[in-house]
Amino acid sequence: MQQLLKLSYGAAFNEDSDARGLTWSDLEGAEGALRDADRWLRSPDNRGTEGFGWLDLPEADLSSVIEAGQWLASHDALIQVGIGGSALGNLMVTQALLHPAHNELTRGERGSPRFYVVDNADPQGAKSVWSLVDPARTALIVVSKSGSTAETMANFLWLWEGMKKELGESEALKRLLVITDPEKGLLRAFVRAKACRSLPLPSSVGGRYSVLSPVGLAASSALGIDVMALQEGAREMDRHLASSSSLEENPAWIMAGLHWLHFTKGRNMAVLMPYADGLASFTEWFAQLWGESLGKKGKGSTPVRALGAIDQHSQVQLYTGGPDDKLFTIMRVTELTETLVIPAVSDPELESLAYLGGHEMGAMLHAEARATAATLASLGRPVLWLEIPRLDARRLGGLIHFYQVVTALTGRLFAINPFDQPGVEQGKRFTYGLMGRQGFEEDGKQSLEAFARIEARRVSC
Amino acid sequence: MQQLLKLSYGAAFNEDSDARGLTWSDLEGAEGALRDADRWLRSPDNRGTEGFGWLDLPEADLSSVIEAGQWLASHDALIQVGIGGSALGNLMVTQALLHPAHNELTRGERGSPRFYVVDNADPQGAKSVWSLVDPARTALIVVSKSGSTAETMANFLWLWEGMKKELGESEALKRLLVITDPEKGLLRAFVRAKACRSLPLPSSVGGRYSVLSPVGLAASSALGIDVMALQEGAREMDRHLASSSSLEENPAWIMAGLHWLHFTKGRNMAVLMPYADGLASFTEWFAQLWGESLGKKGKGSTPVRALGAIDQHSQVQLYTGGPDDKLFTIMRVTELTETLVIPAVSDPELESLAYLGGHEMGAMLHAEARATAATLASLGRPVLWLEIPRLDARRLGGLIHFYQVVTALTGRLFAINPFDQPGVEQGKRFTYGLMGRQGFEEDGKQSLEAFARIEARRVSC
Repeated sequence: MQQLLKLSYGAAFNEDSDARGLTWSDLEGAEGALRDADRWLRSPDNRGTEGFGWLDLPEADLSSVIEAGQWLASHDALIQVGIGGSALGNLMVTQALLHPAHNELTRGERGSPRFYVVDNADPQGAKSVWSLVDPARTALIVVSKSGSTAETMANFLWLWEGMKKELGESEALKRLLVITDPEKGLLRAFVRAKACRSLPLPSSVGGRYSVLSPVGLAASSALGIDVMALQEGAREMDRHLASSSSLEENPAWIMAGLHWLHFTKGRNMAVLMPYADGLASFTEWFAQLWGESLGKKGKGSTPVRALGAIDQHSQVQLYTGGPDDKLFTIMRVTELTETLVIPAVSDPELESLAYLGGHEMGAMLHAEARATAATLASLGRPVLWLEIPRLDARRLGGLIHFYQVVTALTGRLFAINPFDQPGVEQGKRFTYGLMGRQGFEEDGKQSLEAFARIEARRVSC
Repeated sequence: MQQLLKLSYGAAFNEDSDARGLTWSDLEGAEGALRDADRWLRSPDNRGTEGFGWLDLPEADLSSVIEAGQWLASHDALIQVGIGGSALGNLMVTQALLHPAHNELTRGERGSPRFYVVDNADPQGAKSVWSLVDPARTALIVVSKSGSTAETMANFLWLWEGMKKELGESEALKRLLVITDPEKGLLRAFVRAKACRSLPLPSSVGGRYSVLSPVGLAASSALGIDVMALQEGAREMDRHLASSSSLEENPAWIMAGLHWLHFTKGRNMAVLMPYADGLASFTEWFAQLWGESLGKKGKGSTPVRALGAIDQHSQVQLYTGGPDDKLFTIMRVTELTETLVIPAVSDPELESLAYLGGHEMGAMLHAEARATAATLASLGRPVLWLEIPRLDARRLGGLIHFYQVVTALTGRLFAINPFDQPGVEQGKRFTYGLMGRQGFEEDGKQSLEAFARIEARRVSC
C-alpha cells in the first residue's frame, strides 16, 4: 500500500514560550479526550444516524453513480446546480484532477463534457452558463437534499424552464438528473411525479460531508475521474485511522488536538496553504467543512484559505509580521502534475537570474514551501507540514476523508455538534420575510428593524 | 456627478456592550488621529516619494497605456506574467467588468483577445496556458518592478524561450511588452538591450497599489475596458475624500477608524463579503492590500475573503455562532449586471417554492444580503454595509481608490508603514539558500535547521 500522506508537526510546539506556548506534553494530555472523541465518532450506536452517514461512504456501492456517469458523459456539457456542499466538493475534485482550462479544450482533448457549476443567486451565473451550452446536448444536474435551498431552486427553476422551452418537457426530462434525499422533500416528490433520473443523497450525510456521495461523484465520473480510486483512498485512510489507537500513530488525532489546543491559546485562525494550483479549491471546500462544522457556541477557529507561492506575495507579510493568532498548515504535493525546466539565462542583462536556470520549476515551488514553513517556525509561529505524494484520485480521496475525520474530532473536543448548522436559520427566515413568503411576516419585520439600525448612520460620495 | 458609494455604519457600534463594545464617541475620539493620518497621507513632502506614488495615478496621462492597449488588442491572446500586485489587480478588474467566461466566447462575442494570467510557480500554470495559445498571435506581457521576482522571471524565461523557439527572437520581440521600473532593474536593462516595447511602473508605486498604473490598465484597455472611466472614478473619489474634513462626511475615515478600534477590542479579522459574482476577485485583491500593508510589528487584522450568497452556505454559521472576533463588511451592488426573473412554479410538487416565482433573482440576492447583515446586527456583531450603484468601470475605480486610502489610513493608525513589506525578505533568502544561489549559503543552512525542527516529529499513513 503506497503512502497517502505524511504529517510533520515538530514545529507545532514552542517549548520555551510563555502561556501561549504549547508543549508535546500538552498534546499528550489531550490523548484521552481524543480517544473519547474517536470512540464517539466510531460508535456503532451513531453509525448511520443523522450527520454520521459520511463514515459509510467509503464502503458504498458505486454502480449507480458510475452508470449515471456513463450516461452523463454522452453529453456535450453538464450543468450542476447546487450551492455550498452541493458545489464546493465538485469544484474541488475537478480542479484537482482535470486540466485547469478543461472547458477551453476541444472535445477531443477533454475526452469528456464541459462542466459548469451554477451556485450563486447572482443572475450572471445561470445566464452566462446558459449562453454557452446547446440545450439539446446538455445534461442538467440539480442537487439539494431538502429540495428547498432557495438559490439552487431559483436557478433550477430558471434553467429548467429554458430546457422545457427549447426541447419540450419530455425531451428536457431525458436530460435531467436529480440528486436529493432518497425519501423526503420537494425534489424527491418531483422525481416521483416526473419519473426522471435520480440518485440518492442519504439523509444521514450532511452537505459539507457529501463529496464522496453521488453529489460529488456523479459528475466526476462523467468527467473521466476515477471515482473508484477516490473512494479507495478514503477507505484506506479510514482503515488506517480506525486502527491507529495511539496519539503518535494517528495523524487525525494530532491534527485535531493541535487545532483545539492552539484555539484555547488564542490562535483563532487555521490557515491552510497548499503549494499546488490544483489544491486551490480544496481550501474552499475545507473552509466550509471547518467553518460550518466548528463555529458554534462562541467557539470555532476561522479557516483562512491561502495558496503558495502566490500568497507569499499577499499574505506572508501578515503571517510573519502580524499577530501570533494563527495555526498554519503548509501543504505540499511531492510530485507535481506537470514538470517544466527553467531555461538557462543567456541574455547578459538577466545574468543575476542564473541561479534559476536549469532548475525544475517544481523544485523552486518546493523550496518556497519549505522556506515559508521554515520562516514561520524560526519565528516561533506554530506550523504543520502536510505532504501527499501525488495529486491523484486515491490521494485526494484519502485527504478528503482525513480532513472530515479531523473536523469531526475537533468539533467533539470543542464540545459542539460538528454535523449541524443552527446559525444559518435566522438568515433564512429573514430572507423569507423580506421576500414576502407567507408565515414569515414577523421575521420580515425584525429584519427591517435590524437593517434600520444599520442605516441609522450613513455617508455617501 | 452620480454616486460612487454609500456606507451605512449604524451597526458598527454596540452601545450596551461590555469592554469589547464600541460607541460613536469612541470613534469621535479617533477623529484627531484620523485627521493627522490624512494629513500625513496627503502631505506635499510625501507626494511622489517611495510608496506614495499611487496617489498620483488618478491624474496620470494614460495615452501610452491606451496606445499599448490598441496594439495588444490586435492579438488573439494575451498572457500576463506577474504575481501578487502584478496579477491580482488584473484578475479583479477583468472579473468585475468582462463576461465570466470571457475566454470561452468566440472572438466575435468577446470582441477582444483571450486573457491569461500566469502567476504561480506551479508548472501547471505556464504549461496549460502555453498549450492554449498560438504563439504567432499572442502577446506576452511581463510585469515585475524589480525584474527579479523569482516566480515571474521563471515563468517569463520559460514562455520567452518558447516564443523565441517558435518565432525566432526578432518576431518574438515584436510580441513582448515589459512593464517595469522606468530606470532600474533587470527588466529595464533587458528593454534597453532589446529595444522592445515597455511601459513604466513608477518606482514610488508599490505592487499592491499598482492596479491603476500600466500594470492593471494596459491589458484592461486591450480587453475593451474603459480605463479612462476607471481612472475617473478614482479621481472623483480622491477629490471627495480630500475635501471631506470631518468624520461624518468622510467614509474612508469612518472605515479606517472602525477597523482600527475593533482591532484594539480583539476583533482580529476583517471580513469582506460582497454579494455579486463580479466582486469575488475584488476580495482577493483587497486581501493582499490589507494583509500586506497592515501585518507588521505584531499588529494587523487578517482579511477574510467571502462571497454572498455562497458563503451563507459555508461561513455564516461561523460568523453567527462562532467567536465575536470579526468586523464585517457586507457589500452590495444596487443594480446587478444581469437580470433574470424566476419563473412561476407550475408543478404541484414544487408548490412550496411559489414564493420565489416572479421575483427578480437579483432581488432575492439583495434580500439575502440584507438578511445576513440584519442577522449579524441583531446578534450584536459589528457590521458595515457598503453599497455601490453599479459594477461599472467608474464605480470600480472609485472603490479601488477608496480601499487604498482606507488601508493607508488604517496603517497610520496602527503606527506602521503601510507601504513596505519587510516580512517577506526572510522567506526569499531561505528560498535562495535552498536553491543554491551564491551568497545565500548561511540562509540555506538556517532554513534546513528550521525545517529539521518541523520534521523532528512525523507520522504517515
